[in-house]
Amino acid sequence: MMSRQELIEQIKKKKSFLCVGLDPDINKIPEFLKSYPDPILEFNKRIIDATQDLCIAYKPNAAFYEAYGIKGLQSLIDTYKYLPKDCLSIIDAKRGDIGNTSDKYAKAFFDEQSGGMSFDAITITPYMGNDSVTPYLAYEGKWVIILALTSSVGSKDFQYLQTGDGYLYENVIKKANTWAGADRIMYVVGATKSTEFTNIRAYAPDNFLLVPGVGAQGGSLEEVCKYGITKDCGLIVNSSRSILYASNGEDFADAARAEALSLQQQMQAELEKAGIL
Amino acid sequence: MMSRQELIEQIKKKKSFLCVGLDPDINKIPEFLKSYPDPILEFNKRIIDATQDLCIAYKPNAAFYEAYGIKGLQSLIDTYKYLPKDCLSIIDAKRGDIGNTSDKYAKAFFDEQSGGMSFDAITITPYMGNDSVTPYLAYEGKWVIILALTSSVGSKDFQYLQTGDGYLYENVIKKANTWAGADRIMYVVGATKSTEFTNIRAYAPDNFLLVPGVGAQGGSLEEVCKYGITKDCGLIVNSSRSILYASNGEDFADAARAEALSLQQQMQAELEKAGIL
Repeated sequence: MMSRQELIEQIKKKKSFLCVGLDPDINKIPEFLKSYPDPILEFNKRIIDATQDLCIAYKPNAAFYEAYGIKGLQSLIDTYKYLPKDCLSIIDAKRGDIGNTSDKYAKAFFDEQSGGMSFDAITITPYMGNDSVTPYLAYEGKWVIILALTSSVGSKDFQYLQTGDGYLYENVIKKANTWAGADRIMYVVGATKSTEFTNIRAYAPDNFLLVPGVGAQGGSLEEVCKYGITKDCGLIVNSSRSILYASNGEDFADAARAEALSLQQQMQAELEKAGIL
Repeated sequence: MMSRQELIEQIKKKKSFLCVGLDPDINKIPEFLKSYPDPILEFNKRIIDATQDLCIAYKPNAAFYEAYGIKGLQSLIDTYKYLPKDCLSIIDAKRGDIGNTSDKYAKAFFDEQSGGMSFDAITITPYMGNDSVTPYLAYEGKWVIILALTSSVGSKDFQYLQTGDGYLYENVIKKANTWAGADRIMYVVGATKSTEFTNIRAYAPDNFLLVPGVGAQGGSLEEVCKYGITKDCGLIVNSSRSILYASNGEDFADAARAEALSLQQQMQAELEKAGIL
């Protein structure tokens, strides 16, 4: 559990708003790890050990574990258990279903007694509206991170549809703001659309934004901060591939740390520029 | 694997377009099953045994298994293995993510070597657009079932947003039709909106529609058929709770069969009315 205030404190303490995305791909991890009983867990543990003082969040992507069935889910559960408590734990699951089904997904990811995990936050797709989101909010202190504007090519298909009252993604933010406040809801906003941050801040002045797409997906940290940073920072910037696969040799953890350190230093400069540090 | 032609043949042979939703809730299944090593699997097996000649599809809802962690996933995998081959197997997972992540979800549910399951079809949420759907279509012969208009209260929040060119859900259908044909794509259309079927058929004249919401959610089969049936039937109507929990005693399988039989008979009458039988 991590409150908004605790999250802001961690950002100031670590001089970072980095989230490390844990999307381990068995075909990309170093060969020598494959002799371990659970190579993916071993990979994640070493990435976590190498980066935890430089980041304020970890975000395992559920798909990368589910792809391997029972074994993959066990890797996810064991990775969850290994996450440091001073980092926000986000399960990137992008679930979205009607109320009675969302209840069950919430149990899977928020109720450790039942599903084996209790993440601090979950990513949610908004297409099914209110009742697809509220069951997660019933878990006191947990965060819901709603897809608004994503960094993929497909974002153009629907998110940018013009409605009578702005783009679809703007409608998502305006509507979701009526479900809970900035202490419970964050939005996913792709870094490849940095000029859109001005627009998003008009609707979501205080919400934290989870920003994928810096690094491998081509977004610029400086641009994101220019348009998206608030007095409380208000940003969690994710990097997955550029950290995880900085090297595929025995030095992968050191290389991952170097990449995370470089991002943390850029973030520190941005936090100073914004007068937060 | 089940092609469109095979699906139509099954519908004619069984005189039914019933899908049984396998959403087993441990708090609702008969008490005596709880002495079995896997009560949920045992429940599903008996439901399947009691209904398989009356339905043409089964649809496990992933959330109801994921809620129980490793044990739940094992129940899902074992349920998948028990599904009869003459029924379309649909995993109701409502996934939706960028391309490289959708690849992994596709592996989880379509690649038995990797995830332990190989369903014929998966439900997908369209918010992230094209690249969130195409990785599933790369699996030859598999179906993608895209959320268009759902039966929940939250459907009003976004699906009915008016764009410059019709409602959002109409845009979803029009756009998705450019990704693949009616032999690969179905749409989810909630039964509580039966008058909308006329409208949907204008955009999706040939696609099969997966229709939840008959029974516990209040939709009427007659209304759905009146507006939605095509010369190939074009409908798969799902019922979950009204069949699964027709009784919570030792006679639950008989009660489930009686409920499924009643639906099959209504469906037969509708197929005859439409000149399909």
